[in-house]
Amino acid sequence: MKDVHAMAPDHGRLELHRVGVTGVQKPLVVQRPDRALTLTVSFSVAVDLPSTRKGSDLSRNAELLAEVVDWTAQKPVESLESACSTIAKELLARHPYARDAEVRAEALYFALRGITVAKQSLEDFHLFAEATARRGADGTVVLERAIAAEAVGMTACPCAMVTAREKLTREFPLLADPSLATLPIVTHNQRNRTRLTFDLPEGTEVEVDRMLEAVEGAQSSPTYAILKRGDEADVVLRAHRHPKFVEDVMRDLLASLPAQFPTMPDATGVRVVTVSEESIHKYDVTSSHRTTLGELRAHAT
Amino acid sequence: MKDVHAMAPDHGRLELHRVGVTGVQKPLVVQRPDRALTLTVSFSVAVDLPSTRKGSDLSRNAELLAEVVDWTAQKPVESLESACSTIAKELLARHPYARDAEVRAEALYFALRGITVAKQSLEDFHLFAEATARRGADGTVVLERAIAAEAVGMTACPCAMVTAREKLTREFPLLADPSLATLPIVTHNQRNRTRLTFDLPEGTEVEVDRMLEAVEGAQSSPTYAILKRGDEADVVLRAHRHPKFVEDVMRDLLASLPAQFPTMPDATGVRVVTVSEESIHKYDVTSSHRTTLGELRAHAT
Amino acid sequence: MKDVHAMAPDHGRLELHRVGVTGVQKPLVVQRPDRALTLTVSFSVAVDLPSTRKGSDLSRNAELLAEVVDWTAQKPVESLESACSTIAKELLARHPYARDAEVRAEALYFALRGITVAKQSLEDFHLFAEATARRGADGTVVLERAIAAEAVGMTACPCAMVTAREKLTREFPLLADPSLATLPIVTHNQRNRTRLTFDLPEGTEVEVDRMLEAVEGAQSSPTYAILKRGDEADVVLRAHRHPKFVEDVMRDLLASLPAQFPTMPDATGVRVVTVSEESIHKYDVTSSHRTTLGELRAHAT
Amino acid sequence: MKDVHAMAPDHGRLELHRVGVTGVQKPLVVQRPDRALTLTVSFSVAVDLPSTRKGSDLSRNAELLAEVVDWTAQKPVESLESACSTIAKELLARHPYARDAEVRAEALYFALRGITVAKQSLEDFHLFAEATARRGADGTVVLERAIAAEAVGMTACPCAMVTAREKLTREFPLLADPSLATLPIVTHNQRNRTRLTFDLPEGTEVEVDRMLEAVEGAQSSPTYAILKRGDEADVVLRAHRHPKFVEDVMRDLLASLPAQFPTMPDATGVRVVTVSEESIHKYDVTSSHRTTLGELRAHAT
Repeated sequence: MKDVHAMAPDHGRLELHRVGVTGVQKPLVVQRPDRALTLTVSFSVAVDLPSTRKGSDLSRNAELLAEVVDWTAQKPVESLESACSTIAKELLARHPYARDAEVRAEALYFALRGITVAKQSLEDFHLFAEATARRGADGTVVLERAIAAEAVGMTACPCAMVTAREKLTREFPLLADPSLATLPIVTHNQRNRTRLTFDLPEGTEVEVDRMLEAVEGAQSSPTYAILKRGDEADVVLRAHRHPKFVEDVMRDLLASLPAQFPTMPDATGVRVVTVSEESIHKYDVTSSHRTTLGELRAHAT
Repeated sequence: MKDVHAMAPDHGRLELHRVGVTGVQKPLVVQRPDRALTLTVSFSVAVDLPSTRKGSDLSRNAELLAEVVDWTAQKPVESLESACSTIAKELLARHPYARDAEVRAEALYFALRGITVAKQSLEDFHLFAEATARRGADGTVVLERAIAAEAVGMTACPCAMVTAREKLTREFPLLADPSLATLPIVTHNQRNRTRLTFDLPEGTEVEVDRMLEAVEGAQSSPTYAILKRGDEADVVLRAHRHPKFVEDVMRDLLASLPAQFPTMPDATGVRVVTVSEESIHKYDVTSSHRTTLGELRAHAT
Repeated sequence: MKDVHAMAPDHGRLELHRVGVTGVQKPLVVQRPDRALTLTVSFSVAVDLPSTRKGSDLSRNAELLAEVVDWTAQKPVESLESACSTIAKELLARHPYARDAEVRAEALYFALRGITVAKQSLEDFHLFAEATARRGADGTVVLERAIAAEAVGMTACPCAMVTAREKLTREFPLLADPSLATLPIVTHNQRNRTRLTFDLPEGTEVEVDRMLEAVEGAQSSPTYAILKRGDEADVVLRAHRHPKFVEDVMRDLLASLPAQFPTMPDATGVRVVTVSEESIHKYDVTSSHRTTLGELRAHAT
Repeated sequence: MKDVHAMAPDHGRLELHRVGVTGVQKPLVVQRPDRALTLTVSFSVAVDLPSTRKGSDLSRNAELLAEVVDWTAQKPVESLESACSTIAKELLARHPYARDAEVRAEALYFALRGITVAKQSLEDFHLFAEATARRGADGTVVLERAIAAEAVGMTACPCAMVTAREKLTREFPLLADPSLATLPIVTHNQRNRTRLTFDLPEGTEVEVDRMLEAVEGAQSSPTYAILKRGDEADVVLRAHRHPKFVEDVMRDLLASLPAQFPTMPDATGVRVVTVSEESIHKYDVTSSHRTTLGELRAHAT
């Protein structure tokens, strides 16, 4: 049977940077220290295509995803990121004409959260992983890996809190009493989604649960599924005692990373995107930044 | 050329309730009292199909939408709802085998909003319209129409406000001073999306701007695109002086309708869905209800 | 601590049909005959609210979901539908003021598919379940349950195939040769998503895998993740030998149900929605219908 | 009133790359040679933030968008891209502490399409624009601009067509007759979405309608809203006479650009993403590439 993909292109004999499949849904079983868990993952995989070849053999991508991912029901992988790395390297083996292979994965991730241990339940977070395998001149394969974790928490606006205090003090003069100087004052608060991405140097590993904790620690407060009457007030008070712009979430998260990830190398890339779904506006507020752990350490000293 | 649609079905000679097209994007020009405005609308239209016919002639739907909607650039229509009614009636004319025709439309709608006139800007709302035309036994056509308007505003939780006051009073005894009894206290607040739908009896019209105002009046506060420093505090204070559960938004909206729409008939159907995107949870809170203006009036007296 | 929810409403003392939470993401472990599998589920749960009560105690919903669903990691449930039924009944127990409770759930579902056994892999489908528990006058609880399964397959248009044959025969007269009368002819083909819902009478169970097979059997062809060169042609030929409008998918599916589900009662409700994402249009084509197994059986005889 | 944004950051005195608002919906009136049209645009705007400042003054962003965009109802702009450029430059003026400002915009765009002039109607496309203004050392502002256009069309797979011909010829030997050598043969076809982006050197302008035509010219066939019986066959035949992988769409589009945009400078950046929503798979197939017009011209000679 004729192999149309291996034929020469009709016209426009250009090499192409990326050809692949996207939106391949798969259950991936990951072995955690304490339990096996199933991630529902959306995978995208692609390789480059030389100028001499009409098409990429995409059925190999589907076969590979089935082999690596379906099999984890029997033999779990270590992490979403390790699955992506395995797939990226194997893509290069199965597309001998390719120089680099890219894998991206996105998954819901459930972790226990609770304002007390008795009120813990599984809450939803997002994980993302990317792996790019590049064929070196000498046939070796170089791997670039990234892992990201995203948590929804809460922010309380520090600016409206200050101006509300000014206005309220005119209406309620007693508010000026020194004993009320630290009274939390009304402001607007909202859902905040913050994603922390690490570009991992070779040999470096990181625990996504630590990344999620770093994110939640930088928001005005984490949020919880189960909150009984008094608990709601506790979360509200915590958020209002740590009022933050997206800029504050960003800086507090970045500033916390050197202490939270002390053994990761300086070359570790750091990317953060934080979005507050403002309650007083119909639009969102956002901040994004890219740096390295080394720069953050230099800045901290 | 053979008309495959008009042939008999292969097997399963059942009549079908709805066959049509969905997701047809169109710009619709609407003439408002003060200006013409362009809505970007997603239309879905469908008719029933008799058991004797293999297929519905769907190209007529696309032709009809083009004729009615594209032409509004030259000759604007009165409203989204009137466009839907025209299309529903004309669907019956063009599908002579059909007994009923249904049109649904969804559009972004921009209206001026501002905390002061000087700070007004165009903000985004959603409109929805439905029209069903039914062929009566005597050849007459009966029309059922619905119009919906949705606004994003803000809610502040009344429960966490009460418990936060209790907790704060233990920490700040001065809070118990009678002069601070009405001091707005911290709670969680969030985006609230509320949609009001009217099922319109024949001959009844309604102004969507009035519907949006009714919705915004029932939330803890409307929200605004442009808020300078002190304005944010004003919105925050307004919201915290009107703390509301979704249940309160729902009841306050329903209770307000008799006075706000005094001339609409008792038979007017009323449907409301309200959703609060909780800042202290990762999930949403919602309430829905269906009644009539007549029932609301009976209840109000 | 004051229970604000249990207080009387401020104004608008109306009973409300539904108050609840929506978009609660959870992993649900289901025990299948051959394996345990983890569904990533989005739950919505709600109860009605009497006119005398300001708010619904929503924290009970979150607690209940945590208890029932999180626990399935240790003790799997039988099905998505049985989890919904359990939750609906327990909602009534925990909201003693409620008369009915509604649970809706949506999940990705992975099942093995392959054009041959050797090329099988896990492919993605969607499941939906609804359960409503109503408190009877005598304190008994009546349960209404629905289960839905949705599969993506392929349709090939029968109309364009006929007209393409006419046009091609003018250009290629040999096509009129009787030996080519059954040659599959080019037409447009596209993704088709079809959802089959059963409203289940009390005591009736159904296997979702059978429902998915019924849906895939009614499309022009199922689709597969792994297709080697010759396999693609086989799927293409199968689809073009079974060209179908959405109307045909609908009728063929409905007509097949009596034989495929012979033991389910006549009172079983049947709802079908089928959508073809047309390749020759930018919009979709759709059909929807609602009937009962009894009506379909009466029609078949 | 205290300006909290202008205060020093609490900790983590880092400069931030981007702080802004996202998802600001606005109607933008654009004056085309033949008519004024209203785009419904989603804007995102952001500036960098120096390490000395706690927050970005985001209300200026909302004010600016209102001034520039709302005003186009009275005084239309030339294009989506020119509106973005104006906003980017003005952002720098209003955030004197910022070194660069970024604007992104996405809009539905309606253009007349038809298989004949008599069957023309408004069909939906997508436009995207980006503008980044950078403050130079000498106070001058450098502007980087990009404009993108995306069209949905149709692809027919060249590989399955070849293998289907082989299989069908075994079943229908007459197919081997030389007079049928060019008979279009069944294959799978699907929706294809292709986006062409130009990174525009200073002073360079481009017409989005030409970009959309280039995209549609590279797909197997454009698609149309209104297709009467014979028209469907014409589109089907056109697509099957131009069978294309995403790789072919990509290369044919890239190869066509030098001739279609002869006056644009070599330095013009070119980015293309093409996605085919495969009818025989549940996942999509995609290709992406980045180059310059200069490279494409060098390659073409």
